[in-house]
Amino acid sequence: MYYIGIDVGGMSIKAGIFDEKGKLLLKDSVRTLPERHYSEIVADMAELTKRIAEKAGVGTDEITGVGMGIPGTINSKTGMITYANNINFEKVPVVKEFQKHLDVPVYINNDANAAALGEAEFGSGNGSKDVVFVTLGTGVGTGIITDGVLLEGKCGAGAEGGHMTIRMGGEKCTCGKRGCWEAYASASALMRQTKKAMKADPSSLMHEEAAKEGKISGRTAFNAMRRGDRTAKRVTDNYIKYVAEGIINMVNLFRPDCVLIGGGISNEGDWLMAKIQRRVNRFSFGGHRNPKVYVRKAVLGNDAGMYGAAALAMKKIR
Amino acid sequence: MYYIGIDVGGMSIKAGIFDEKGKLLLKDSVRTLPERHYSEIVADMAELTKRIAEKAGVGTDEITGVGMGIPGTINSKTGMITYANNINFEKVPVVKEFQKHLDVPVYINNDANAAALGEAEFGSGNGSKDVVFVTLGTGVGTGIITDGVLLEGKCGAGAEGGHMTIRMGGEKCTCGKRGCWEAYASASALMRQTKKAMKADPSSLMHEEAAKEGKISGRTAFNAMRRGDRTAKRVTDNYIKYVAEGIINMVNLFRPDCVLIGGGISNEGDWLMAKIQRRVNRFSFGGHRNPKVYVRKAVLGNDAGMYGAAALAMKKIR
Repeated sequence: MYYIGIDVGGMSIKAGIFDEKGKLLLKDSVRTLPERHYSEIVADMAELTKRIAEKAGVGTDEITGVGMGIPGTINSKTGMITYANNINFEKVPVVKEFQKHLDVPVYINNDANAAALGEAEFGSGNGSKDVVFVTLGTGVGTGIITDGVLLEGKCGAGAEGGHMTIRMGGEKCTCGKRGCWEAYASASALMRQTKKAMKADPSSLMHEEAAKEGKISGRTAFNAMRRGDRTAKRVTDNYIKYVAEGIINMVNLFRPDCVLIGGGISNEGDWLMAKIQRRVNRFSFGGHRNPKVYVRKAVLGNDAGMYGAAALAMKKIR
Repeated sequence: MYYIGIDVGGMSIKAGIFDEKGKLLLKDSVRTLPERHYSEIVADMAELTKRIAEKAGVGTDEITGVGMGIPGTINSKTGMITYANNINFEKVPVVKEFQKHLDVPVYINNDANAAALGEAEFGSGNGSKDVVFVTLGTGVGTGIITDGVLLEGKCGAGAEGGHMTIRMGGEKCTCGKRGCWEAYASASALMRQTKKAMKADPSSLMHEEAAKEGKISGRTAFNAMRRGDRTAKRVTDNYIKYVAEGIINMVNLFRPDCVLIGGGISNEGDWLMAKIQRRVNRFSFGGHRNPKVYVRKAVLGNDAGMYGAAALAMKKIR
C-alpha cells in the first residue's frame, strides 16, 4: 500500500510517494505554469505521479490513494475546486479529471488544511487530534483539526482564520475588510511595518540590514533587533503581539493541544515561540484553570502540504 | 422513551421533560441558591427531575437519559465541572453525584453549547448540522456545531468566541484581556456605550427613555433611536457593527449554514438581523463566491438551554 501526496502551488506542483506508515520514499516536482487550461495542469499531475511511482519501484496498481492540497476554496466532498486564486482554477472537477489518467481514489482539500494535517500527523503535532496550524507567509493561513477531524466549513469555505478581525477599522486587507489578522501578522505585513519604521528612523540598523540583503524582507527587523537596534525591537515586539493576538483567539475558540507555526517567520526560532507562548499563557481564557496549549514551530517546512495530502488519502478524508 | 433537559443557571435551575421526538411535555424550576454545597444543589436537580416526571405521568424507569447545560468549563467526557463561575462549582463530579439519586445515563455540557444544540435541533436552525449560536447577554456566549458535532475544545475549554479580540488594545474585558468581542457586543457593553453617549449629549432622548424605564438598559438606545434621536442612532449603529464584526469572524472560521442570535438584544427584531446580514454578506471572506450564511433570530428564548440539554441525552453527546 502506497500513497501519493500532491501539493499544488502557484509556482510548482510537488508530489511525494509514501509507504503506509507515512514514510516519504521519494519526491519530485514540476512547474505549474498556471495560465494553462486545467486539463493540461492535471495531466502533468498524473504524469508526475506515475514518474515518482516508477522511480520508487512501485506499480500504479499498488497506489492505494492520491491526496491533493490546493490553495483556495475546495469542496472535498464533491471533488471540485470552487476557486483557486493563484492558479486561475474556477469550478474545476479536479478529481474526475485526474482519474481520466489514473484510476485511483483521489482526496482533495485546501492546501492549508492539508499542511495542518501533515504537521499534526507527521510533524510537530506528534499525532495529536486537536491542532491549530498557522502559516505566516504572504498571507496568514490557518488549518484546524478538532477531535481528529479537519474543520472545513460549508463547501470548504471555513478555516479562514487569517481573516478574523483583530483590530476593527484598522489596516485594509486584500479580502476587502479592515483589521484582519493577516493584515498585521503576515510576512508581508511585517515588511510593511519594517518599511514604515525605517522611514521614520533613518539611523536604524534596519537600513544596513536591508542593504545587505538587497531588499526589505521578513528578516530585516529581526536581524537589526538582534544587533541591538531599538526601533527594530519595537517593530518585532509589536509584530509578535499581533501574531500572538490571533493565536489567542484561536486558542479561545478551539482550545487545541498545540498551535503549530509554519512559514518563513517561524525560522526566527525557539525564542519567538517562547515569546508567543508567554502571551498565550497569560491572555487566553480561563488562565491557569484551563489546559495549557503548547506553541511550537512546525518542522516539516515546505513538505507539510505534501505529507498532509498523503494523509488525506491514508485517512480517507472527504 | 423520555428525556430530561436541565438548564443550570446562577439564579434558577430549570428542567423539562421531552418525548423522543423532542416535544416538551412539561417544565418546572427551582431556585439555585448557589452558595450551598454542590451536593445539596444536585439533590435539588434530582428532586426536580422526579417531580416533573411524576407530573407528566412518566415513571423514572421510562427516563432514557438526562442532559444538563451548566455555565463554565465542563468536561463532558469525564462528567466533571472544571469550574462554573456563577455557581461556585469547582471540580465537581456532577454526573456521579446526580446518579446517587437517579440511576440513568447523564450527559453534561456547557450551557451555551447546550443552547446552541437546542436552537440548531429544535429552534431556528431547523435541524442544520452547521450552526453558530451567539448569545448577546451579560456576556457574549458562543456555541458551535460543525458537521453535527459540538465544538468543545480540550476539556471543554473551547468555543469562547466572546473572548476573541476584535479591537486590539481596546476596552478591558472581565477575562483580563483587552478588546474582546464581549467587551463591545454584550448587552452590558451596549449599556456602557449608551451611558457614555448620554453623558456627552444631555439633550438626547435616551435620558427620557431611561427615566421611563427607571434605568439604563439594552433597550434605551434602541428605543430613543426609533424616536429619531441621532445620538442614539450613532450608539445603535456602532453596536450593530461590533456585533457583526464578531459574527463575520465566526463565519470566516466556521462557514456554517446559519448564525443564530439569542439573548435580550435579539428581541430588537428582524431589522436588526437584516442589518447584521448585510454586513456579513459584504465583509465575510470570498464574498458572493462562498456559500451564503443566514443570520437569524433564535426562537427558543430562555428554553434553548433546556431543549439542548435534552438533545445531549437524545444524541448521547459526551
